[in-house]
Amino acid sequence: MTVVDSARAARNASFLLAALPREAKDRSLASMAAALRTRSAEVDAANMRDLQRAREQGVAEPLVKRLAFSGNKIEQSAVGVESVAALEDPTGRTLSARELDEKLELLQVTVPLGVIGMVFESRPDALVQISALCLKSGNAVLLKGGTEAAETNRVLFDIIVGATVQAGMPEGWIALLESRDDVRAMLALPDSIDLIIPRGSNEFVRFIMDNTSIPVLGHADGVCHVYIDRSADLQQAVAIARDSKTQYVAVCNAAETLLVHADVAEAFLPQLAAAVPEVVLRGCERTCAIVARAQPAQQSDWTAEYLDLVLAVKVVDGFDEAVTHINRFGSHHTDAIVTADRADAERFMARVDSANVMWNCSTRFADGYRYGLGAEVGIATGKIHARGPVGLDGLVIYQWRLYGNGQVVADYTGPDARGFTHRRLR
Amino acid sequence: MTVVDSARAARNASFLLAALPREAKDRSLASMAAALRTRSAEVDAANMRDLQRAREQGVAEPLVKRLAFSGNKIEQSAVGVESVAALEDPTGRTLSARELDEKLELLQVTVPLGVIGMVFESRPDALVQISALCLKSGNAVLLKGGTEAAETNRVLFDIIVGATVQAGMPEGWIALLESRDDVRAMLALPDSIDLIIPRGSNEFVRFIMDNTSIPVLGHADGVCHVYIDRSADLQQAVAIARDSKTQYVAVCNAAETLLVHADVAEAFLPQLAAAVPEVVLRGCERTCAIVARAQPAQQSDWTAEYLDLVLAVKVVDGFDEAVTHINRFGSHHTDAIVTADRADAERFMARVDSANVMWNCSTRFADGYRYGLGAEVGIATGKIHARGPVGLDGLVIYQWRLYGNGQVVADYTGPDARGFTHRRLR
Repeated sequence: MTVVDSARAARNASFLLAALPREAKDRSLASMAAALRTRSAEVDAANMRDLQRAREQGVAEPLVKRLAFSGNKIEQSAVGVESVAALEDPTGRTLSARELDEKLELLQVTVPLGVIGMVFESRPDALVQISALCLKSGNAVLLKGGTEAAETNRVLFDIIVGATVQAGMPEGWIALLESRDDVRAMLALPDSIDLIIPRGSNEFVRFIMDNTSIPVLGHADGVCHVYIDRSADLQQAVAIARDSKTQYVAVCNAAETLLVHADVAEAFLPQLAAAVPEVVLRGCERTCAIVARAQPAQQSDWTAEYLDLVLAVKVVDGFDEAVTHINRFGSHHTDAIVTADRADAERFMARVDSANVMWNCSTRFADGYRYGLGAEVGIATGKIHARGPVGLDGLVIYQWRLYGNGQVVADYTGPDARGFTHRRLR
Repeated sequence: MTVVDSARAARNASFLLAALPREAKDRSLASMAAALRTRSAEVDAANMRDLQRAREQGVAEPLVKRLAFSGNKIEQSAVGVESVAALEDPTGRTLSARELDEKLELLQVTVPLGVIGMVFESRPDALVQISALCLKSGNAVLLKGGTEAAETNRVLFDIIVGATVQAGMPEGWIALLESRDDVRAMLALPDSIDLIIPRGSNEFVRFIMDNTSIPVLGHADGVCHVYIDRSADLQQAVAIARDSKTQYVAVCNAAETLLVHADVAEAFLPQLAAAVPEVVLRGCERTCAIVARAQPAQQSDWTAEYLDLVLAVKVVDGFDEAVTHINRFGSHHTDAIVTADRADAERFMARVDSANVMWNCSTRFADGYRYGLGAEVGIATGKIHARGPVGLDGLVIYQWRLYGNGQVVADYTGPDARGFTHRRLR
C-alpha cells in the first residue's frame, strides 16, 4: 500500500473513529495492553534481532540501550496503555453553549483532529504510547519509527492492529511507514494529514518543519534562561540556577544561559561558580572579571543549546535588558526569573514571549508529567493551537453544532428581523 | 522601511503590547474612534480620489461602490471601534490553575499571539476593524489592503498610528504594506509573523495558503450541503433548503449541494423545485427523472462553489451515502441535516468532518455575529487552533506560568522524591 493509500484509508477511518463512544476506545486500549502481554515473546525476539544488527553496525552502546525493549519494558508499556485508557476522553467536551434564539442552541464541542502523522527516532515504546494517545483521542495515525528498531516496530504494529481492529476499531486507523521516502511522501499530503508531530533531535525536527506545509507540533531548540534579579534571594538563586543547568543536561528545558543583574553579580557569581564546579562557564566581560575560571563568551554562545555541562553567563544592567536578551536570543521555550519582587515577576512573565515562564523555580519543571497533564504528546514552541507541554487536549479541535427547529436566516434580516437572544447556557 | 524592518519593529512592539492592561488598550481604541471622527474630511477626500481613479480605470460600478468610505460609513466605523473596546479582553484569562505542590502553582493564561499579518481586498472599513481587533487582543499587525483603496488606506493608517501612539501604544505596533512584493516578503518571514489572516476571493486565499509556511487562518472554499433525511418534516426541509441556497448566494456559508434520501425524493423534490423557481437545478439521474426542469449534473458539480442561483441535487440511498458524499466532496465548512430523528442528527454531526454542522436550520447561520462571538476575525476551515467563525479568541494563545518558592526538580526525583499534589485550583 502506498503512503497516499494509507493516508486515504486513515482519513476514512477517522470519520468512524470520531463517532465512537469512550467505552469502545477504552475497550480497544485494554485489548491492546492484553495483546502486548500475550505476545511479549515475539516482541522480545524481534528486539533481539534489532539489537544484534545495531551492534553489528557499530551503533554506540548508549543508543543500543535506548533500543532495548523486552520483559519489564514491555510490561511497563502495557501499563502505560492502561493508564491512557483511564484518562478523561478529550473529545465530546462542551467548550461553550449559547442560545441564539428560542430552540436554536449552539454548542462548541471538542472533536478529534482527524489524521496525525507521527515521526520519531529510535525508542520502540514511543510507538505504543503514541498509538494509545491517538486512539484515546479518536485520531487515525500514520507512524514512522526509527529504522534501528524496524523489526520491533513491525511486531508492535502488528500486535496493535490485531488487538484494536478485533476490538472494533475501523481498519486502516493506524499505518506504519517504513522508509524516509514514505515520510517525504507524507509531508507532501496537506489535504490528508492534519498535524505532524516529530520527536527526535533538533536537526530532525527542523527538517520536518522546513519540509511541509502541514502544521507541525514540536520544538527544534531549547535555549532556556535563568535571570537573577536584583532582589533575588541569592541562596535560592544558586539552587535554582544549579538545578536548571545540571539536574539533567541533555534535555530541552535545561538552562543554557544565566543572566545576572549587575547590582548582585559580585555577590552571586562566586557562589554560583562554587556550586557548579563541574560546569564550564562562558562569561561576558563583566562575568570574567568576577569569576576567574570563566572563559570569554563568543556571540554564538548566546544562542547555543549546549545540552552539556556548559553555561553562558551575562551580567545585565537591569530588568529590561534581561527581557530583551531573552526575547532576542532565546527559543521561546522556558525562561525563569528569580526575584523577591512579585510585581517584577509578573512583568517578566507578561513580557517574555515563551511557552513556559517560571518565578523562583527551576526551568526543569516544564514538562507534561510534572504539570499534571496526564500524558505528554510533545512540547511545542509555536504560537498556534497548543504551546509548551501538550497533553491529549492538543490532539483535539472543536466543532460548532447548531441545534435548530426549522429556523432560517431570512427571518433574522430586514426591517422586521427577529433578534438573537445570545444567552449563555450552562 | 523594508518589510523585514517593519516586521522586526512589530515583533519588538508586541512584547510591550502583551504586558499592557485592558484600560490602556481601550483608551487607545477610544482615541482611534475620536480621531476617525475629527479627521473624517481627510478620509473623505482621499476616498474621493480612490473612487475617481477606479472609475477612470473602468472598474465595475458594484466594486467601486464597495470602495466608497465617507460620512456615515466613517461614523459606523468609529462606532465599530468603540464596540470592540467594549468587548471582554481575550488576554489574561486563566484557562486552568493547578497546584503542583505546596507553594508551586501553575497557571495557564491567555496571551496575544504576537504579530499578525492581515491581507485583504478592497473595503477600507476592514482596515479599521482589523486594527481595532488586533489592538484589543494585544497583537502587533502588518496590514495590506486593496490597491484600489490605497489613498483611503494611507489616511486611515495615519489616523490610527497617530491616535494610538499618542495614547501610549508602542511605536511600530502597526505597519501598512503597500505592494504585492511587500506581501510576498511578509509570507517569507515565518520567524517574525505568527499568523496570516487573508480575506478575499477563493483564489486570493488559496494563493496565500500555497505560498507561505506561516500558519494561515481562513478558508478558500465553501461547498456546503443540506441533507434531507427520510424522516424530515418536508415543509421545514423546503424552507431550510431555500434559505440555505437563496438567502444570500454570494457567501461561503450558502448551500451548493442538496442531498435527498431516496425514500422521500419523490415527495420532496417537486415541492423544492416549486419553492425556488429562480434556482437552476443540476441533478443526478434520479433527480432529473423526478424534476423535469433539472439539468443533468456533471462530476464537477459535486465540488462546485457556484456562489450563484445554482444548486446541485443528488438522491442518496441513505444516511451513510450522504455522510460519505459530504466528507468526500465538501469543503469542511458548513453542512446541515434535516431530520425528525435526533439520534440521526447526532450521528450526522459526529461523522461529518466540518467546522459547522446544523440540525434543522439553515447553513447561513454559520457566522460570527449570528453565533454571538462579538466580533468576527474570519472563518477557518483548517483543523488547527481555531475552526469555523473565529472571534477575538482566535488571536490569542496561552502561556504556562509557574509560581514557585525556590523549588528544584532534583527534590522530585530519585528514591526519596517528593510527590506532586496535582490539585486543581479554582
